Amino acid sequence: MKDIHITQETRMANAIRALAMDAVQKANSGHPGMPMGMADVATVLFNRFTNIDPSAPKWPDRDRFVLSAGHGSMLIYAINHLLGYADMDIEQIKAFRQLGSRTAGHPEYGHADGIEVTTGPLGQGIATAVGMAIAEKMKNARYGDDLVDHFTYVIAGDGCLMEGISHEAIDLAGHLELGKLIVMWDDNSITIDGDTDLSTSMDQKARFAAAGWHVLECDGHTPTEIADAIESARKDPRPSLIACRTIIGFGAPNKQGSHDVHGAPLGDEEIAAARKQLHWDHAPFEIPQAIYDEWGRIASRGAKARAEWEQRLNTATARAEFLAAEEDEVGALPAAIEAYKRKLSEDKPKVATRKASQMALEVVNATLPFTVGGSADLTGSNLTKSSGMKSITPTDFSGDYVHYGIREHGMAAAMNGIALHGGFKPYGGTFMAFADYCRPAIRLSALMGVPTCYVMTHDSIGLGEDGPTHQPVEHLASLRAIPNLLVLRPADAVETAEAWEIAMTSKTTPTMIVASRQNLPTVRTEHVAENLTARGAYLLRDPGERDVTIIATGSEIEIALDAADKLAAEGIKAAVVSAPCFELFEQQDAVYKVEVMGTKPKIGCEAAIRQGWDLFLGPRDSFVGMTGFGASAPAPALYKHFNITAETIVSEAKELI
Amino acid sequence: MKDIHITQETRMANAIRALAMDAVQKANSGHPGMPMGMADVATVLFNRFTNIDPSAPKWPDRDRFVLSAGHGSMLIYAINHLLGYADMDIEQIKAFRQLGSRTAGHPEYGHADGIEVTTGPLGQGIATAVGMAIAEKMKNARYGDDLVDHFTYVIAGDGCLMEGISHEAIDLAGHLELGKLIVMWDDNSITIDGDTDLSTSMDQKARFAAAGWHVLECDGHTPTEIADAIESARKDPRPSLIACRTIIGFGAPNKQGSHDVHGAPLGDEEIAAARKQLHWDHAPFEIPQAIYDEWGRIASRGAKARAEWEQRLNTATARAEFLAAEEDEVGALPAAIEAYKRKLSEDKPKVATRKASQMALEVVNATLPFTVGGSADLTGSNLTKSSGMKSITPTDFSGDYVHYGIREHGMAAAMNGIALHGGFKPYGGTFMAFADYCRPAIRLSALMGVPTCYVMTHDSIGLGEDGPTHQPVEHLASLRAIPNLLVLRPADAVETAEAWEIAMTSKTTPTMIVASRQNLPTVRTEHVAENLTARGAYLLRDPGERDVTIIATGSEIEIALDAADKLAAEGIKAAVVSAPCFELFEQQDAVYKVEVMGTKPKIGCEAAIRQGWDLFLGPRDSFVGMTGFGASAPAPALYKHFNITAETIVSEAKELI
Repeated sequence: MKDIHITQETRMANAIRALAMDAVQKANSGHPGMPMGMADVATVLFNRFTNIDPSAPKWPDRDRFVLSAGHGSMLIYAINHLLGYADMDIEQIKAFRQLGSRTAGHPEYGHADGIEVTTGPLGQGIATAVGMAIAEKMKNARYGDDLVDHFTYVIAGDGCLMEGISHEAIDLAGHLELGKLIVMWDDNSITIDGDTDLSTSMDQKARFAAAGWHVLECDGHTPTEIADAIESARKDPRPSLIACRTIIGFGAPNKQGSHDVHGAPLGDEEIAAARKQLHWDHAPFEIPQAIYDEWGRIASRGAKARAEWEQRLNTATARAEFLAAEEDEVGALPAAIEAYKRKLSEDKPKVATRKASQMALEVVNATLPFTVGGSADLTGSNLTKSSGMKSITPTDFSGDYVHYGIREHGMAAAMNGIALHGGFKPYGGTFMAFADYCRPAIRLSALMGVPTCYVMTHDSIGLGEDGPTHQPVEHLASLRAIPNLLVLRPADAVETAEAWEIAMTSKTTPTMIVASRQNLPTVRTEHVAENLTARGAYLLRDPGERDVTIIATGSEIEIALDAADKLAAEGIKAAVVSAPCFELFEQQDAVYKVEVMGTKPKIGCEAAIRQGWDLFLGPRDSFVGMTGFGASAPAPALYKHFNITAETIVSEAKELI
Repeated sequence: MKDIHITQETRMANAIRALAMDAVQKANSGHPGMPMGMADVATVLFNRFTNIDPSAPKWPDRDRFVLSAGHGSMLIYAINHLLGYADMDIEQIKAFRQLGSRTAGHPEYGHADGIEVTTGPLGQGIATAVGMAIAEKMKNARYGDDLVDHFTYVIAGDGCLMEGISHEAIDLAGHLELGKLIVMWDDNSITIDGDTDLSTSMDQKARFAAAGWHVLECDGHTPTEIADAIESARKDPRPSLIACRTIIGFGAPNKQGSHDVHGAPLGDEEIAAARKQLHWDHAPFEIPQAIYDEWGRIASRGAKARAEWEQRLNTATARAEFLAAEEDEVGALPAAIEAYKRKLSEDKPKVATRKASQMALEVVNATLPFTVGGSADLTGSNLTKSSGMKSITPTDFSGDYVHYGIREHGMAAAMNGIALHGGFKPYGGTFMAFADYCRPAIRLSALMGVPTCYVMTHDSIGLGEDGPTHQPVEHLASLRAIPNLLVLRPADAVETAEAWEIAMTSKTTPTMIVASRQNLPTVRTEHVAENLTARGAYLLRDPGERDVTIIATGSEIEIALDAADKLAAEGIKAAVVSAPCFELFEQQDAVYKVEVMGTKPKIGCEAAIRQGWDLFLGPRDSFVGMTGFGASAPAPALYKHFNITAETIVSEAKELI
C-alpha cells in the first residue's frame, strides 16, 4: 500500500476518513469506500480553492459543490461538520441514517445547509451541476464578474458516468463551453458488482474530449497533483474533467481497492487497522481542535470573500434587480395575468393550449425578467419561446432561452440546477409522452421542493397521427402519483394563463403544464378575477339544481360542455366541473369540495386511463376515457374510435340517473 | 445540388423517396426528410447485404434491421412494400397514418411483418438492437455459425445519438465487442429546432471510438462508398458506426438540407420539383415493375438463404433444443414450480422476497435452458444470479448472465432486444426506485407485447436507511398505470415462486416482480397446487362470516395478518386478502371478485400511495399507506413513523365496523 506522508492536509483528509468509517459503523449501514477514497481530493479542493461561507450558506456567489456520487454522503457531512456549519454538529454525524437526523443515507437538499442538491440516483448530480453552471454564466452575463464569479465543482463516480444522463449533461456542457464547471471523477475502477471491466471498456477521458471538454488526470492521493489539476481546470475556458486515480476505501489496509469496501461498514477490526494505517489515534467522533482550526480557516476565507462581495453588491447599480431575481419576486405578474385574462374573455380565442401557453408566456416573460425558457428540441411544437426571447449560445449568455437538444433528462436536471442555483425561474418543454425520459429528475424536483416548471405538450391521443409511442395514456396518472408535483391540465387560454401564474409563483413545488396539440375553444367566457385553476377544480357550468355532474380536464372540457348541452335539450341538468389540478383540489376544504362535486351521479372524462380519478368518482360513477394504448390516426377519428365523445357521456348520464 | 447519376440502384432508392413523399403528402402528416435522405444508404444495405425472406418474416437467422429514427417510418414501409411483404401492399402505403392501417406514424412491432421493434421514442432502437446483437452472439455460442450467423443493422439519427440511452447502449456494445452490430448514422446536421450546432458540439466519431467501436464514414449518396463502408464494418470484430453524410430530404430541390423538410409534407409544388430532380416520372404510388423486380431479387436471395438454413437446421443435432428455445417452450416449469411450492410450505422460510426470488430462480433456471439473467450492477442486491449461471464476457458468450452495468435504461432496452430476437427469455434487476430510469423501455415492452421480465427489489420504505431517493412510494401506482404490464408484488416465497411461473410463461405481456429487501415470513403455509397469484388476489385468511376485509400486498401481508390476529382477539372477524397482482385480479369474473373482496368494510394496506387502490376500495373504505416521500432510517422505525402498523389497521377496522 502507498505510504502516507503525513502533512497537515493529510490529517484534514484523515478526519473525513475517520468520521466516515465511524459513522457508517455506528449506523451499521452506509458507504465508507467513496469518502475514504476521495478524501484527499475533496480536502485539497476545499482547502485551496473553494469559496464558501458556512455562516451564510445561501450566499449567491459561493462556489457550488455537488456530490454526484451521493452514496458517499459521509464525505459531505464530514466536510460540512469540519467547516463548522451550525446545523451539522457531531451529534448529527453520530445520528447518520437515523430517523429525524439531517444526515440521511444520501444527501437531501433542504435537510442541512451546504447540501446544494439531493443526490443518490446516479448521474443526477453531474447533470444538475450543468444547470448550475449555465445559471452562473447567464447571471455573469447580466451582472458581471463583480457580482457573479464562482465555480461549480462536482465529484462523480463510475456510476454517474455510466448512466445515460451523463451523456446528455456532458454534451450540453461541452457545447455551451461551461468553463467554470469542474468534474472530479473518482476513477477507482470499482462498481458494486466488482471491477468496472465487468461491464465497461469506455475510455472516459477520450469520451469527455469528444464532447469538447478539457481533460486532465491526477493521482487522487497526491495533493500537489490534485492542486495542479484543479488550478489548470480553473483556467481553461472549457468544462474540465479531472480523472482522479484513487483507491476506494483508502486507508483501510485489508479492504481498500475492492468492492467489499463500497457499501458496507468496515467492521471494528478493520477500523482499528485503518486508524493505525492512517496514524489516527483519536476516539470515534473525536477530532482534535487543531484539525477543526485548519478547516475553520477555509470558512474564514469564505466569510471574508462573502463580506467583500456584500460590499460590491451594496454599491452596485443592479442591486435591486439582482435581489429581486434572487428572491424570486413575482411583483406585477398576478396583475398582468388578470388583465390578460380579462382580454381573453373578450377575445375568446380558439387555440391549442400549447399556443395559449405561448400567449401566456408573452405576458409572463414580459413581466418577470428572470425566467429561462427552453425545449428539448421541440421549440416550434412546445411553443416555449415567446417573442422577446433570445437563445444563449456558447459565446453569448445574455439570452434567456436554452436549446437543450434531444435530451429530456438532461434538460430536466439542468432546470433543477438553474432553479437551485437561484436568480432564475426555469421552464422547459417536451412532448408529454417523453416525461418518462426525464422522470427521475422530475421526481427530484418534487423531493427537493424546487419549483422547476415542466411544459408537456401533445398531451393525449389528440396529437393524432404520431401514434401510440407519442400518445400519453397513463402519463397523467403516473405524474399525479408523484408527491409534491402540481400537474396542471388547462382547458382553454384562460386556464392556461392561470396555470402559468401558479407555476411562476410556486416556491417549493414543481409544476407541470400539460397542453394540447389540437385547438380548443375558450370556455371561460366570463371574466373572473380569482385564479380558479388554483382551486384545483371548480364549477364551470352550474345549472342550479343538478341531475348529474360531468368532471373533465383540458381538451375534454369541450366534450363535456357539448354533452351538457345535449342533456339540457333532453331536460337533464348537468353541472360541468373543470378539474385542471387534482392536487390543488385535494387541498380545498370539505364544504367547497361538496359544493363543486355535488351529491348526484358523476361522470369523469379524460382522454387517459381512469387511475387517479377515484379521487372524484365512486364505484357507481362512470368514467369516459382510455383503457389501453392509443393508435395512429387523425385526432377526430381517434376520439370517435375510443368513444370519448359527447354522445358517450350523454348515454352514460342517462344510465346513471 | 449534387448531380444524380442514375443507376439501377439509384432508381431503387428513388422508389423509396417517391413513396415517402407521396404517402406523407396524402396523409398530410409525417416525416419525409429522413427516408429521402437515407434512401441510398438503405438501398445499398438491402440490395447488397441484407439476408431476409419476406415470405418467412420470422426466420430466426434473418438479419435484423432496426429503424431507430422511427419518425422516418416511411423508409421501412416503402422498403417492406418493395420487398414484397404480403401485408404491406400499396393500399397500406396509401393509408399511411390512418386508423386501422399497418402503417402507423411510427413503426409498430406486431402491426406488420418485417418491423423488428417499435421505434419513435428516440434512442430506443439502437439500444434494443444491442440486445438483439447480444442474443445473436449468445445463440451463436450455443449453436454455431451453421444455425446462427446474422447481422443487426441500425439506422440512427442525431436524436438517437443525443439521447442518454445511446450512451448506455454504445458503452455496453463496445465492451461486449458486438462485432455484428452495424449502426448507420444519418449524419445530416439537422434537428427539429434547426442545425445540430444549436445544441451539440459532440464529435460522434471520437465518441464511438472512445467506447471501443470501429468507426467509418461515407458519403450517404454514393453507393460505392456506402458499400465499402458496410463491407468493412461486417469484417471488423468490433461494433461499427458508419457516419453517413447525407442531405436531409435529398431530392426535394428547394427544401432539402433544411429542417423544414424534417417533419411536414413537402407540398404539391415541391413534390413535382422533386419528381423532376429525381427523374421519376411515375404517378403517386405507382412503381414500375422493373423496380419491383430489382427489389424482388433481394427477397429471392433471402428465400434461398433461408431454405439452405432450414436444411442445416433439419440435420442439426441441436434441432429440438433450438426450436424449443425459439418457441419459448416452458415444458416442465409448472411441475417444477409446484414441487418447489410444496417444499416451501413445509420449510416455511423467512426470507426477503428478493432472496425468495433467487431461490425460485434456482428452479426456473434449472428447468428453462434459455433464460438470460442480469442486473444493472446490483447482482448481490437484486439476487438475480442463481448458482448455475455464468456471466458472458467479451470473449465468451456461452454464459447466461449479463452484467449490464449502471445502465437501467440500456438494460431494459437490451432485454427487449433479446426477447424480440427470440431464443431467449430475458430478466434483469435493479432497485425499484430506478424503474423511473428505464420507464420508456418498460412502456415499449408493454406496447409491443414483449414478455421482458423486470426484477425490482428494495420495493418500499422497507429498504430503510438509503432514504427517500431510493424508496419507491409512487412507483407501484405509476407502474400499474402502464397498460399491458403485470406488476407482481409477492408476499412470501410461495407467491414469489408463483410470480416467476407467471413471468416465465407469459408470451405477450411484460412482467415485473417487485421484491422486498427485508425478511418476510412464509404466509402460504398450506400447499395449494393452483397458482393463486395468477388470480391476482385471493383470500389468504378466511374467517368464514367476516366483519371486515384487509387487503394487502407484499411485505404488508405480514402486518395485515398480525392485525387480523389482534382483531380476532377482540372478537372481530377479519378476512385477509393477498393481492399480488391488480391487473390479473381485474381479469377475474364478478363472482370470484365478490367472493374474495366480500361486501363488508375494507382496509387496504401497502407501503405506497393510495392511487390505484380504488380498484378495491370505495370512498368509505380505508387505506393504510404512504402519502408522501419516505425518510432515511432503519426499516422498523420507518414503518412505525409512517403508521403502517397492525395497530393502525386495527383502529381503522374498529372505526369502520
